[in-house]
Amino acid sequence: MTTNQPINDVMNARHSVRTFDGVTTIKHAEMQALLKTAFLAPSALNLQPIRALVIESPMIRQQLATATGNISQLTTASAVVLFVNDRENLAEKKPFLPAQQTGVKEHLDIAALDCGLVAMQFMLAAKDHGYDTNPMTGFDHAAFSQILNLDTARYEPLLLVAIGKAVTAGKMAKHKAIKTLIDFQ
Amino acid sequence: MTTNQPINDVMNARHSVRTFDGVTTIKHAEMQALLKTAFLAPSALNLQPIRALVIESPMIRQQLATATGNISQLTTASAVVLFVNDRENLAEKKPFLPAQQTGVKEHLDIAALDCGLVAMQFMLAAKDHGYDTNPMTGFDHAAFSQILNLDTARYEPLLLVAIGKAVTAGKMAKHKAIKTLIDFQ
Repeated sequence: MTTNQPINDVMNARHSVRTFDGVTTIKHAEMQALLKTAFLAPSALNLQPIRALVIESPMIRQQLATATGNISQLTTASAVVLFVNDRENLAEKKPFLPAQQTGVKEHLDIAALDCGLVAMQFMLAAKDHGYDTNPMTGFDHAAFSQILNLDTARYEPLLLVAIGKAVTAGKMAKHKAIKTLIDFQ
Repeated sequence: MTTNQPINDVMNARHSVRTFDGVTTIKHAEMQALLKTAFLAPSALNLQPIRALVIESPMIRQQLATATGNISQLTTASAVVLFVNDRENLAEKKPFLPAQQTGVKEHLDIAALDCGLVAMQFMLAAKDHGYDTNPMTGFDHAAFSQILNLDTARYEPLLLVAIGKAVTAGKMAKHKAIKTLIDFQ
């Protein structure tokens, strides 16, 4: 397999895929490599509050799927990766946030932004390795935390990304015209 | 200039840069191309709530720098891009959020996550074009909104990204060991 493909091609080829082949497995070494690349993303004040839980167990994934409306991605993907905010990351390392941070009211906003940075690199690295992904914000956080036995005081679920081999190629999502999204001043 | 470089190389070469050459300008066509690529990022429910304001005016950037502690990036970069959440995007298009969205309590969290996805692609596209970037969450949102004459009821500032030609090459930030960031279940 060719990796390290031209970046613009990868960014244009990455589309969300919702049904995977259900048989492909991803070795831990490869998953670690994908996540290591993903975690090269910058984070606010370089605090790196995001953690990734790679959920492979078919039994657990079936439980998650049942709890959250039977999303097909959960059972057909090679794995689903839950990105969470580790609240103790901030608590332990930076007890007093600097004054300039007050622009954003909630830690969670910053964590969500940091999560987006990591997750984007993860999805691009995955695509580069021949996998497709599907990012999901709409899942039952409480049910997931319970099934996965997460310390809910510590870990705040933010994003779920299914990864696997697509059955049929993803299609480009509809995008708003760039002129409605940007302006110059 | 060579663009569309190998993606893994770009992801490993992108580092935050805080001082730019102060002279390089980026043509609107190129900036639009960078942002168009950035906005290929997925968004929750494909709502695409993020907008980008490209701030080029030296006078406005000087005002912003003064208001926010004289951050050198603001005056030496080719441009600074303010990414905001457009609250009317949701209001106009999706008056009722689907039930599965209730996992995340605030629209802003989702918008911040969406912002991270877009911003990561922007920084990678910029690096691919030979520019360096610096993402900033710690700026005075109220002062920025006032100086930029933003409708604060509509636009919520989320992230500022300076873009330009680095004076000296950026260095890899310290990253936590991958084993402290990920786990398998």
